[in-house]
Amino acid sequence: MSGGLPGLDRVVIRDVGPRDGLQPEAPVSVEDRIRLIEALVVAGLTRIEVAAFVSPKAVPAMAGAADVVAGLTRAEGVTYTALVPNLRGAELALAAEVDELTVTISASATYNRRNVKMSIDESVDAIGSITTLAGPAAVPVDAVISCCFGSPYEGEISPTDVVDLARRLEQVGVTSLTYADTTGMATPRLVVDLIDLLPGGVGWMDTGLHLHDTRGTGLVNAYAALQHGVARFDTAVGGLGGSPFAHGAGGNLATEGLVALLDDLSVPTGVDLTLLLDATDLLATLVDRPLPSPLAHHGPRTRIAGRGQE
Amino acid sequence: MSGGLPGLDRVVIRDVGPRDGLQPEAPVSVEDRIRLIEALVVAGLTRIEVAAFVSPKAVPAMAGAADVVAGLTRAEGVTYTALVPNLRGAELALAAEVDELTVTISASATYNRRNVKMSIDESVDAIGSITTLAGPAAVPVDAVISCCFGSPYEGEISPTDVVDLARRLEQVGVTSLTYADTTGMATPRLVVDLIDLLPGGVGWMDTGLHLHDTRGTGLVNAYAALQHGVARFDTAVGGLGGSPFAHGAGGNLATEGLVALLDDLSVPTGVDLTLLLDATDLLATLVDRPLPSPLAHHGPRTRIAGRGQE
Repeated sequence: MSGGLPGLDRVVIRDVGPRDGLQPEAPVSVEDRIRLIEALVVAGLTRIEVAAFVSPKAVPAMAGAADVVAGLTRAEGVTYTALVPNLRGAELALAAEVDELTVTISASATYNRRNVKMSIDESVDAIGSITTLAGPAAVPVDAVISCCFGSPYEGEISPTDVVDLARRLEQVGVTSLTYADTTGMATPRLVVDLIDLLPGGVGWMDTGLHLHDTRGTGLVNAYAALQHGVARFDTAVGGLGGSPFAHGAGGNLATEGLVALLDDLSVPTGVDLTLLLDATDLLATLVDRPLPSPLAHHGPRTRIAGRGQE
Repeated sequence: MSGGLPGLDRVVIRDVGPRDGLQPEAPVSVEDRIRLIEALVVAGLTRIEVAAFVSPKAVPAMAGAADVVAGLTRAEGVTYTALVPNLRGAELALAAEVDELTVTISASATYNRRNVKMSIDESVDAIGSITTLAGPAAVPVDAVISCCFGSPYEGEISPTDVVDLARRLEQVGVTSLTYADTTGMATPRLVVDLIDLLPGGVGWMDTGLHLHDTRGTGLVNAYAALQHGVARFDTAVGGLGGSPFAHGAGGNLATEGLVALLDDLSVPTGVDLTLLLDATDLLATLVDRPLPSPLAHHGPRTRIAGRGQE
């Protein structure tokens, strides 16, 4: 295929903007977070990380998680996901009847300790207790492994160690695995190296990538992954995001950037770029800083006489 | 090869920062432009667009082109390039003893008329007169074709039309051809489509790409081109740039972003990334706005405990 992609039937995009995107920002009200989520649904997103059931003291921007979930008008065919840091969070998220849980663990021991105050072993055990809780409710648990392509603390992270951790997470019952480039240290080479090591390839544990654009490499890393068959990505509307625990981390790969790339390659995502940019416009009114996403400023290449061309 | 590149022996990077990068900025003194150029030479750049022999009334930032060239301590093995808009500019550039001339012409008729007030036919003729002048001096003339992947005025530009224009430029004696994405409308698909149409492939007329990052796609477009054998790129230190005639255009692809990508893929460029970031630091002191380049802010992935991690 022109552009170098294999025959991908469809790419699934999970928009983590209402959670990962807004988490480091000044708090946005429950009502406005609901408006943003519903704008994403209108744009065609079918999997959205809508909340984090974390301590509002630790992460003020995520306060009111249960209220966000309760306030949503659930659309058919949409998976509403919540991040849970521990068993208590999982109980609350399941009580709120979310459709999917995300749990995080780091391939970097130091990052893991700073982020969740546990060793990697303790985090694996904690995730096991969450999958045990979620199993009877038939709620899938996606484990997001942070710092898969490098750590601001240890530097290089061995892809073999990442895959070893992934196998342990499979054993404790997670449903799928998402490999995160938390601080924007991935490169096309490292992405391909990791994919090549996955037992059974990208089909194993429904491989997803969660990319950050700290060093301007989010899209090229996604492209390399797409060329190797990865068909599931975490992105954030407007390109917001970045962990407060990783100095120098920039935003998530912008949803609109990935959608524009895939539209141009004729790979379906179900997302309407024009409607997505409406959601981006809404987001720009909710946060008190310019959005990092270049498309939010310049508009898509197909919009000749419109946005950014005035 | 891991990361999907064919065996590229070397990639040639022409840094257009002192010209295309500084052109839309508030004027930087001749002395400081010389400092920037010499910092790029120290970093290992071997081809640098150092000046534009244009009317200082039309482009105040490029005033003093002859003084810039005269003031340089010429390093062996470095090609010092100047942009010339017309025969008079070419005469001045040749008198200044530059090593290479760049001329521009647009694949977009409207853009061409706005940029140089000529039809495309008139521009081809003008370029022919420049190659006739430069020939006896044995100074190569590189034609940079703007808007090859879309125009802010006409929208889509047919790659067939681009190749037809390229053939006409070959016939009037240009030495090499550089395909420019002046307003950041290229996509990996469009890059590959154009490469596929080149008569004789990327070896024909020493194919180069000049990419802009308006929509955050500079690096992914470069990666797609590299995968198809393109081994020559125009980039700008710090990611500055953008034509004043193209509303909404952002900066050039940052030199440091491409060097970091190629370093990671073990493709030699001759450029030392650390020294290049010294040049970027210098540039940041010369212009009165934050540099667009993410690496200028966050530093390379390999610099764990340094820049951006404080």
